[in-house]
Amino acid sequence: MMKSNFKNISGSINAPVGFRAGSVFCDIKKLGTGKGSEKGDKHDLALVCSDTPAAVAGMFTTSQVRAAPVKISVERAARKSAQAILINSGNANACTGSRGMADALEMTNITARLLEIPEEHVLVCSTGRIGVQLPMENVRGGIDAVVKALGSSHEYATQAAEAIMTTDTRRKETAVEFELDGRSVKIGGICKGAGMIQPGMSRTSSRPAATPLHATMLCVITTDAAVEGEALKSALACAVANSFNRITIDGDMSTNDSVIALANGQAGNEPLSLEAGDCERFGIFQDALNQVTLELAKMIVRDGEGVSKFITIRVGGAESFADADAAARSVANSALVKTSWCGGDPNWGRIMGALGYSNARIDEESVDIGYSRSGDAEVRFALEFGKPAVDLESLKEITVLDEFDIHINLNRGDGEAVVYTCDLTEAYVDFNKGE
Amino acid sequence: MMKSNFKNISGSINAPVGFRAGSVFCDIKKLGTGKGSEKGDKHDLALVCSDTPAAVAGMFTTSQVRAAPVKISVERAARKSAQAILINSGNANACTGSRGMADALEMTNITARLLEIPEEHVLVCSTGRIGVQLPMENVRGGIDAVVKALGSSHEYATQAAEAIMTTDTRRKETAVEFELDGRSVKIGGICKGAGMIQPGMSRTSSRPAATPLHATMLCVITTDAAVEGEALKSALACAVANSFNRITIDGDMSTNDSVIALANGQAGNEPLSLEAGDCERFGIFQDALNQVTLELAKMIVRDGEGVSKFITIRVGGAESFADADAAARSVANSALVKTSWCGGDPNWGRIMGALGYSNARIDEESVDIGYSRSGDAEVRFALEFGKPAVDLESLKEITVLDEFDIHINLNRGDGEAVVYTCDLTEAYVDFNKGE
Repeated sequence: MMKSNFKNISGSINAPVGFRAGSVFCDIKKLGTGKGSEKGDKHDLALVCSDTPAAVAGMFTTSQVRAAPVKISVERAARKSAQAILINSGNANACTGSRGMADALEMTNITARLLEIPEEHVLVCSTGRIGVQLPMENVRGGIDAVVKALGSSHEYATQAAEAIMTTDTRRKETAVEFELDGRSVKIGGICKGAGMIQPGMSRTSSRPAATPLHATMLCVITTDAAVEGEALKSALACAVANSFNRITIDGDMSTNDSVIALANGQAGNEPLSLEAGDCERFGIFQDALNQVTLELAKMIVRDGEGVSKFITIRVGGAESFADADAAARSVANSALVKTSWCGGDPNWGRIMGALGYSNARIDEESVDIGYSRSGDAEVRFALEFGKPAVDLESLKEITVLDEFDIHINLNRGDGEAVVYTCDLTEAYVDFNKGE
Repeated sequence: MMKSNFKNISGSINAPVGFRAGSVFCDIKKLGTGKGSEKGDKHDLALVCSDTPAAVAGMFTTSQVRAAPVKISVERAARKSAQAILINSGNANACTGSRGMADALEMTNITARLLEIPEEHVLVCSTGRIGVQLPMENVRGGIDAVVKALGSSHEYATQAAEAIMTTDTRRKETAVEFELDGRSVKIGGICKGAGMIQPGMSRTSSRPAATPLHATMLCVITTDAAVEGEALKSALACAVANSFNRITIDGDMSTNDSVIALANGQAGNEPLSLEAGDCERFGIFQDALNQVTLELAKMIVRDGEGVSKFITIRVGGAESFADADAAARSVANSALVKTSWCGGDPNWGRIMGALGYSNARIDEESVDIGYSRSGDAEVRFALEFGKPAVDLESLKEITVLDEFDIHINLNRGDGEAVVYTCDLTEAYVDFNKGE
């Protein structure tokens, strides 16, 4: 197999050739300042578009309660191509009934008219409070302004990355470059997260997946690679399964989670397909895409509401992937485990408690639990085959760190799963406890 | 059907005839004060016993990780009769391997010898930190002392209720009295809870039930009713299903949850059985027992770690009980929903979010969500068939209260479930964040 050779580059969604981004403030939260962005109000409407029609793929929340923009984007991402993605922050347009659906459609309609592209080529995302109607008088003017505000330099992409933020404390963007058929190919991405984060996205289903899921996370990925529509959909599904669907901040899945990718082919490589002969070239693209989504997913966890620690949970030796996943999520979402991390307490007893009530099949006397520095191969085992192995003080050297890994081996089979998560802090509670 | 006519009375496990309780401090946490209870150290070892052999029933955690005392008590509660229950706080004797099992057995052995009863008639419960061996040198002396400290007045029961507390801020005890066959019959109970509370107990199974479960809650119930063993086991299963298995504080099920009942028959009623002809008399007993367990279960939620609000979630119109239960627990365990309650915020959008990712089948446009004062029939609907129905300000009059009910109707079927829960506060995080 060809060795993947992507490298990280500066920039994000404007790094690939033929994309423009822009953003404006149009007072979607109805703050009533009426001052516009000149006065420093945070942008709340962003637009990303390709100069030419692009292959499209999307992954969306599997919640049974789906925001209007999700319903529209699910359909349009299932098509062969698209060209633009409009995103607002400050209002989720969820639980807003037929009016919310009409508003979301109008947003795509206005955007399409101004960009002179088919309405079906515009996708839409929203994030913010649930159950409040959009202030369409503001949104209409905002779309008019944002279309005029498009630009292809990195600065525009950065502004868009900031415009989609809600409770995020910093923008999240990344890009990679690699070679394919002698051409330089780039993939860039921006995303937002913060709270309501345990995504579990699929291409179309609105029934819950086997694992619980939750968050508003939004992500836009652009690439100038030439990729056939089905190949892009397959690549994005794989990338999301190994990144955004592996994170949890608070175990709450959102009504609005969306990841949308556009591939406009302007790099000039031979179009990638799912055909057998394309396997190696497709692998290079997949690796690079995986890197972009995993990096963005980890940024979401590190910038979660009130987060003070980033923890990677690695479960092995489970009877199946489903068991490993259930075990990892049970630990990652346990309020008692998460609060113990907050204090730097290596409380493996609480981890055993969470394994005990998980849906994973476990045998108490076969469980190993170890701790290591983040990414470090040297693991200190707290528990080996159910027996305490080291003193807690030695583990505390690891658990006081801002980032560490927990290694759980159920010693029953070959199932493995990784979940990226964080602690539960007083700051999270304070942040979410209402007005 | 005969009308149930129980009344609440003062006292708890010593209210029924023929029971004694006692407790001592024996330094199970190895605080090293060495002062004994004279100096005000909180008691940490309690003993409850019947003067005569009693019918026995038990319900225990369904976690796959079960403490040694649970393994022993599960077996002994499956027998026809028992006579004593020994309980320590400060150490869970969980994840303690073969030594933990030997220690728990020795605890019952010493107790039996001193009380001059068969070893199999002694059950044992532990609660406290997981993964630490019991200081048996202290425990042995403690058992010797606690057997001498038994008494039949209310004061002794009260001390036992305090001895089993861990992070509880107040003792939990109750008793009821009713008439059967012209005799006065009493049922009393004590329990403890605080954190790791979402019990899901069964008589024997150690596989997780359909719903997640978690807590160390311990409960001892005594009655002087004459009840056949199988009838007592059936009555306790029903009572627990409608009380302790309906509460969640933090969604974490414990390795040690145990509810044990002893019925010594000294009230002199005709023994209750599961025979068809006994249905009405059995119903009177069941009603009274349900009252005891529900009252104790609610005390556990109200005294949960850091709890500032007590919330009852009533789900109706689900396709099945399982769906109603899944919907109620998804809402009750959502970090975002729980934190919104903490601030008195009627954030029904987060409730919809939690319903959306639950395993209950829901249709967004059929959901009603309402709020009422605790136990009040007057419900203010926030959402009717998916449409906002009242302004948030009017709901805040309810959500600022210390106790309120949330009414969810899925409008799909006849499934109903109730879950008793609480908010998630900074105090909970502070309490659990380690040393």
